[in-house]
Amino acid sequence: MRTLHDLDTPFAVVDRSRVLANVARLRERLAPHNVVLRPHVKTAKSTEVAELIFDGRPGPITVSTLAEAEAFADKGFRDITYAVGITAQKLPRIRALQERGVVVTVLLDSVEQAEAVAGIPALIEVDCDGHRGGVSATGDELAQIGQVLTESGSLAGILLHAGESYFAYTPQELKAAAVNEADVARRAATTLRQAGLDVPTVSIGSTPTAHAFTTDIDLSGITEVRAGNYVFFDLVMAGIGVCTVDDLALSVVVTVIGHQTSRGQILTDGGWMATSRDRGTARQPIDQGYGLVAELDGTLIPDLLMSDASQEHGTLSLRPGSPYPLPNLPIGTRLRILPNHACATAAQHRQYTVISSQADLVVENVWERIQGW
Amino acid sequence: MRTLHDLDTPFAVVDRSRVLANVARLRERLAPHNVVLRPHVKTAKSTEVAELIFDGRPGPITVSTLAEAEAFADKGFRDITYAVGITAQKLPRIRALQERGVVVTVLLDSVEQAEAVAGIPALIEVDCDGHRGGVSATGDELAQIGQVLTESGSLAGILLHAGESYFAYTPQELKAAAVNEADVARRAATTLRQAGLDVPTVSIGSTPTAHAFTTDIDLSGITEVRAGNYVFFDLVMAGIGVCTVDDLALSVVVTVIGHQTSRGQILTDGGWMATSRDRGTARQPIDQGYGLVAELDGTLIPDLLMSDASQEHGTLSLRPGSPYPLPNLPIGTRLRILPNHACATAAQHRQYTVISSQADLVVENVWERIQGW
Repeated sequence: MRTLHDLDTPFAVVDRSRVLANVARLRERLAPHNVVLRPHVKTAKSTEVAELIFDGRPGPITVSTLAEAEAFADKGFRDITYAVGITAQKLPRIRALQERGVVVTVLLDSVEQAEAVAGIPALIEVDCDGHRGGVSATGDELAQIGQVLTESGSLAGILLHAGESYFAYTPQELKAAAVNEADVARRAATTLRQAGLDVPTVSIGSTPTAHAFTTDIDLSGITEVRAGNYVFFDLVMAGIGVCTVDDLALSVVVTVIGHQTSRGQILTDGGWMATSRDRGTARQPIDQGYGLVAELDGTLIPDLLMSDASQEHGTLSLRPGSPYPLPNLPIGTRLRILPNHACATAAQHRQYTVISSQADLVVENVWERIQGW
Repeated sequence: MRTLHDLDTPFAVVDRSRVLANVARLRERLAPHNVVLRPHVKTAKSTEVAELIFDGRPGPITVSTLAEAEAFADKGFRDITYAVGITAQKLPRIRALQERGVVVTVLLDSVEQAEAVAGIPALIEVDCDGHRGGVSATGDELAQIGQVLTESGSLAGILLHAGESYFAYTPQELKAAAVNEADVARRAATTLRQAGLDVPTVSIGSTPTAHAFTTDIDLSGITEVRAGNYVFFDLVMAGIGVCTVDDLALSVVVTVIGHQTSRGQILTDGGWMATSRDRGTARQPIDQGYGLVAELDGTLIPDLLMSDASQEHGTLSLRPGSPYPLPNLPIGTRLRILPNHACATAAQHRQYTVISSQADLVVENVWERIQGW
């Protein structure tokens, strides 16, 4: 029986109970709405985590790489949306999946791409908040692309992503982002339908907006909701109020390797190689450095932050102005770092060490992450 | 014959000629000094890159993980310094390497660690600039640790790292950091010798200071110099004047997947998963965003930056105030991103696609990176 004391640090830990609770919460949040949940598997990149979402059966998923699509296809997943703008060079791998009976739906936002994907189901990306890609919900371009896709039998529908919701800091802003995402989606669907086109899928979602889809939000006309980060959550999500720190299911175990007491610093063997360089909370009202610090059983150490990182060194220090003394953490002490951004921190690891619940240090399983592209 | 046009993007490219030139430059810089070069292999994590440094033979190296030590031991390397503070739990893997005839020298900066490593060669980390770990060169602690190590036959010497040299922005500051690193090292060696202890190894170095060791710098008493990043270099190093942008040997090939012309943006399939979240140039006089953008043959596109990143999306835009128009880069165009921080960008990839020189698009080789810890 191995425990979190036995493995060489640094390593990534997943708390299975918290994943299950996070998964149940979003399922319940969406239950009153007539929508399909199509989770984005890019955060965990783990077929085992997806099994927790779908109760062991394959379900509809969103992927960020063809490597994810292929790995999930190998596990029997047959309904996959590849939500990064498509280019012609990636089509052979998608056609190979099609030939295996996998429906891979691609994403695009130009006539040029629409012409290239003939015969492959495609969603048109619609911009709802100026975040990244997508065409306007009301301009001519949307209908033009829809027309091209329809001619080749490829039009699957539309997809929106309220990426700017990651910068919402009040429940009101989050709700406004959620309402806007659904409103713009319906407007875009109307644009296409008024052009005489079929729009079977109307896909929206992000972890912040999906959790803001309370029963008073109108999701009529929306067929599916996507979210990814919510399986693990992180300090950025806690900072915008989508979860609490107690919901975080991913952490990194590190070991104390030194002290610089005169500078108020404790050094660990977990640097940015273990946590990533993500500083997502730097732009939030409360900057959490590279992460919060907990004891190995998950108990948070008040005001202790991972304040700096080099490749294989983490620096821990107290939050500026803290009334606490620097805790006594001898060399060899194991700690857990709660990360800013679960997607980025998880990406630094090849596998997850799985525990059944927060304070249970027994290693229940090891789950591999899908690597590369 | 495959070329950079044939592989699925994103992927990391190494320009072998530039690595060779970078390797030769540091070798020449250090040649007038009576020091051993002990490269840090943490940047490339590739035994093939190390072969370029050592002309195909094993040589003395520095590692940041035991996974690196083990992989290099498998390739015949027998003199390895593990330059992250040691803890007792990592000793079994080090003893296993010892039993294979590999000399693994560990690093520490406390009496407690010194007591734990009995029988394993150990360097005492000395602090030269308040950057991270290490004891004072002149305090009692250094001699106390040296005494404990000597009693168990473990004292190998001392090690310093001028980590703050990464924040030097003038040749004068770089030179001062280099002089200080050597001066403090000699002071620390004297402290130990005055306590009657042997100090065979006096190890200093960082990529910025190693390149500042011109012939007028006194390296007497220094036995070895370490540097890691210099095999690839990056925009942070170019920003502090240690190299030019034309020396960068690592880049990431990405594909244009969309345009937001009204916002002056071009979207690619290379997000932070391909470049890392490192924003090292953000604190430099010239902020390079997530990296500079070049054509596939390496020709820089004036003023075009990778200005933003999400997981699998890169946003390119012109540097603020640029007189140039947004270049015409159709969907499917392949580009190369020159990264802020080679160590972090390389860490996002499992392998390197190797080309012989800058404008030669033929894939000459694929080199695997050492993964994990």
